[in-house]
Amino acid sequence: MTDSVLSEYWRSSASYRVRIALNLKEITARRAFVHLREDAQHDAAFRALNPAGLVPVWRDPDGFTLSQSLAIIEYLDEAYPDPPLMPADLRLRAVCREIAYTIACDIHPLGNVGVLETLAKDYGVDSGARVAWARRWIARGFPSIEARLTAIAGRHAIGDQITLADICLTPQVYNARRFGLDLSPYPRIVDVDAAAREVAAFASAAPEHQPDADKTI
Amino acid sequence: MTDSVLSEYWRSSASYRVRIALNLKEITARRAFVHLREDAQHDAAFRALNPAGLVPVWRDPDGFTLSQSLAIIEYLDEAYPDPPLMPADLRLRAVCREIAYTIACDIHPLGNVGVLETLAKDYGVDSGARVAWARRWIARGFPSIEARLTAIAGRHAIGDQITLADICLTPQVYNARRFGLDLSPYPRIVDVDAAAREVAAFASAAPEHQPDADKTI
Repeated sequence: MTDSVLSEYWRSSASYRVRIALNLKEITARRAFVHLREDAQHDAAFRALNPAGLVPVWRDPDGFTLSQSLAIIEYLDEAYPDPPLMPADLRLRAVCREIAYTIACDIHPLGNVGVLETLAKDYGVDSGARVAWARRWIARGFPSIEARLTAIAGRHAIGDQITLADICLTPQVYNARRFGLDLSPYPRIVDVDAAAREVAAFASAAPEHQPDADKTI
Repeated sequence: MTDSVLSEYWRSSASYRVRIALNLKEITARRAFVHLREDAQHDAAFRALNPAGLVPVWRDPDGFTLSQSLAIIEYLDEAYPDPPLMPADLRLRAVCREIAYTIACDIHPLGNVGVLETLAKDYGVDSGARVAWARRWIARGFPSIEARLTAIAGRHAIGDQITLADICLTPQVYNARRFGLDLSPYPRIVDVDAAAREVAAFASAAPEHQPDADKTI
């Protein structure tokens, strides 16, 4: 039988989310590394897999492919329900999605490598102004997440259960640190991220521990 | 009993999505119009509801509030299951989410009014270059959606069922037309959008039919 395959990149935070979910579910997959810094996402072979040229992409052994990290995670959560990555309560599930989408829709896409490269190449935005750009959108989204966590977090984002909210939050905090954002206004986000990173499934999914990690950058 | 309230704006495509879902489910809600062009999203009252200053925001009669259009739609879909907005089949559900997230994560946030205003005010990007920016990200995402629709669309995006994919697609096609994107490479997207707009729940949710629509712009 052919393996499942995750096409990914060590520092893609969308890939990082899927790695965490695979670890939590103890799902094994072959990993195909797409070297974004060498523009491998624009190769014809990868474009055939995902015309948008974005990682991650999931492939089942029978050839069914799926892009979009949250679609992949929810698919795996439904196909392999244990442990569940969504809260059982209707409203907590909605809040979990609100946190996940605040990151995946309103923060992450704006600081993504393709967007920052476009700002540099086609809009003449220098490095300092690109960092300010990335920080701005994180700082727009984090206050609403901090408010939610203050109300409902326990050890993890939604009480004490590890959910999709944590899976999205930890990679975004990693990015916030890369961009040098001051996290002091967000103590609950900092706490919840720290608690998640103590969990083995999160720790081993960290960018710096991936086989394709470039230690020189 | 207090009503449910949807805080929204006529030309916000995230609001447009929620309006379609409410119509499909025949859910009644009071509507609070947040005039984005008059910066009402920055008012203290609205910031208390959503610190990110983004519409839409949903409020239940007992005061439970929720932001993020997809979180609101999935919450309503679970609370009011008829008609279902997600396919019953596991893989079709995953593809439905892939299409929804391609729009909600990789296209829509980049052409959003707040982002375009920031490009103008803080990055000196002129009107023509802002339109090129918005078109670029639509043209990055639409090919993968076109490929999916070519494989699985019927009258609607996922066969003949109206799903979350259609709810995201029609507002995005509306935006693509506003930005003057050439849609000729995407005939299935054009067909599926046209079929959806013939459905009353979509037609009455259209921006130009909303009470707060500004006919002068």
